[in-house]
Amino acid sequence: MLYQTANPHGGDTYSHPAALDFSANLNPLGTPDGVRRAAEASLSGLNRYPDPYCRELVRAIAQFEGVKETAVLCGGGAAELIYSYCAAIRPKRALELSPTFCEYATALKAAGCEVERWPLKKERDFSLEESFCTYLCQGGWDAVFLCNPNNPTGQLIEPALLGQIAEICRDKKIRLFVDECFLDFTDVWKEQSLKPLLAGHPELFILKAFTKSYGMAGLRLGYGLCGDRELLGAMSRLVQPWNVSVPAQAAGVAALKETAFLQRTRRLVQQQRLWLEEKLAPFAIEVYPSSANYLLLYSRVPLWERLMEQGIIVRNCANYPGLGEGWVRIAVKGPKENQRLVAALQKIEGAV
Amino acid sequence: MLYQTANPHGGDTYSHPAALDFSANLNPLGTPDGVRRAAEASLSGLNRYPDPYCRELVRAIAQFEGVKETAVLCGGGAAELIYSYCAAIRPKRALELSPTFCEYATALKAAGCEVERWPLKKERDFSLEESFCTYLCQGGWDAVFLCNPNNPTGQLIEPALLGQIAEICRDKKIRLFVDECFLDFTDVWKEQSLKPLLAGHPELFILKAFTKSYGMAGLRLGYGLCGDRELLGAMSRLVQPWNVSVPAQAAGVAALKETAFLQRTRRLVQQQRLWLEEKLAPFAIEVYPSSANYLLLYSRVPLWERLMEQGIIVRNCANYPGLGEGWVRIAVKGPKENQRLVAALQKIEGAV
Repeated sequence: MLYQTANPHGGDTYSHPAALDFSANLNPLGTPDGVRRAAEASLSGLNRYPDPYCRELVRAIAQFEGVKETAVLCGGGAAELIYSYCAAIRPKRALELSPTFCEYATALKAAGCEVERWPLKKERDFSLEESFCTYLCQGGWDAVFLCNPNNPTGQLIEPALLGQIAEICRDKKIRLFVDECFLDFTDVWKEQSLKPLLAGHPELFILKAFTKSYGMAGLRLGYGLCGDRELLGAMSRLVQPWNVSVPAQAAGVAALKETAFLQRTRRLVQQQRLWLEEKLAPFAIEVYPSSANYLLLYSRVPLWERLMEQGIIVRNCANYPGLGEGWVRIAVKGPKENQRLVAALQKIEGAV
Repeated sequence: MLYQTANPHGGDTYSHPAALDFSANLNPLGTPDGVRRAAEASLSGLNRYPDPYCRELVRAIAQFEGVKETAVLCGGGAAELIYSYCAAIRPKRALELSPTFCEYATALKAAGCEVERWPLKKERDFSLEESFCTYLCQGGWDAVFLCNPNNPTGQLIEPALLGQIAEICRDKKIRLFVDECFLDFTDVWKEQSLKPLLAGHPELFILKAFTKSYGMAGLRLGYGLCGDRELLGAMSRLVQPWNVSVPAQAAGVAALKETAFLQRTRRLVQQQRLWLEEKLAPFAIEVYPSSANYLLLYSRVPLWERLMEQGIIVRNCANYPGLGEGWVRIAVKGPKENQRLVAALQKIEGAV
């Protein structure tokens, strides 16, 4: 292979430039004009290093999230923060859900950590259940990784259960990493964020990204929220000084003003997800309930290959621990694209 | 302190927005129009992940450098590559020059490595001498870090000596990291690159950046050249999948076409450096010989403070191991800026 590593994710539309991409969970409304304009205007300052402290952006995030500035750390993409988090805390044993986003385990293993997986049950729609708490109470982990809503299932964790988990983690001194990168796409983005716990839970780290919500995947920008300043300091010492580029900082500041855009995004995603679920219901495809801007599907027919034949690329979930062959994830896109996807699936159904 | 870590570098013009910046060694000609235009045009694709393999850019770099595509690894800034290099090879003992760019030691220590420093002698204008080879022959290091020309001195390493070092490193199985980020600014950019050794020296890693040569500090883009594919694979597994942003990839491809711009840059830098050296010669300031786009100065007068009072910011080298109070580095900029700097120094001289 020519490339140094294989990309395990969706979104690699460069290998299949002609395909309609349902593999990356991006905002179906694209990039807000204000964000693009801010990035463009920032390019006049290309021959200047970025602000190493992301001052303006940190201020804007703190205000937007209602947290202290010292509780905010910006990174060159949410993924960079996952890596620097693992490198900073150097856990020996960590617990994650299965299936879930694969970068946690990759970053944990790169930091020399043993990763244990808590299997979510297909029969329960991959929801996280009380028994997880009982298991967690046994202790023995340095860190627990949750994703809310989970990727690739779109399942939210019950707020009461999440609160219980946070209590246990505080008591047992287990670091709690909660990825809320897709929470903005759900109806409960406000109520179900763990943000209010930050002040009383120094073990809690919340991950957020600009990538998906604001159509900014091409720039690299994410942030972490955490009450433990020492941890944020250690993380920032592990990455290069100018990790957030000039256009990313400018676009981020502009993005946080796009509250109406986010509201429109949520409405579109909810409506289109319901539409897709309805259309897919009669098919011989298992569709798992989701609160996010993506749906997990299972079929005995090799959907990935069959859709690719029709110029549609979806996320093949065969490489997810806990899933395997037959599983794919589709993004919820705009009406036109979703109709094309349903038509393609119809064709596959008809041929079976 | 509000910020998570202190920035140890120059270029923090955000703390002193009104100052004339001589602290960062950027291209005095700024950003080529072609590069800015390419970055701008790429912003229409913001709602798409960057190519995780930087295919077009890797192809362009391989062609530009005359190396195989498999010998190229792109990174989100040269600094990111220093970090992933250290994290991938995990050396126990490393040797670097003193003074030199501080990120090697920071990245090495973050990877748990003990750093030994080879003191360059002020009396010898901080040039690297034969005795280094004798010392190196004793072995015991996992990695050696060189910077050519060195930062902050601007001193080039003698080609014969560099060849000898490479031989010793190959024999003793010591990893050899050579930072050529400022070589493009020198007259000998072509002859003195270690590129021709790559094929026969798998222990050699060459670092290059777009940041300085092409006025692209605001975007984050650097690359490494190395014949050891396994090392490049390990490095790329240690960073996030989309570490090079869409505008950085587009700007990089455009930059490599700017050979006339680089030629003009070299002419301007050489001419202006000579002019500065001439003007500073009568002052009670020690000026060390440099082949790069910056000059190392020593003065008993606190230059950093005195220049700051006049709205000019230079790189305070007090925090460089091997230097200390009284040392500053100035960038070689355009005629107008350089004249302002000389006038400010003249004022300081007159006041002493």
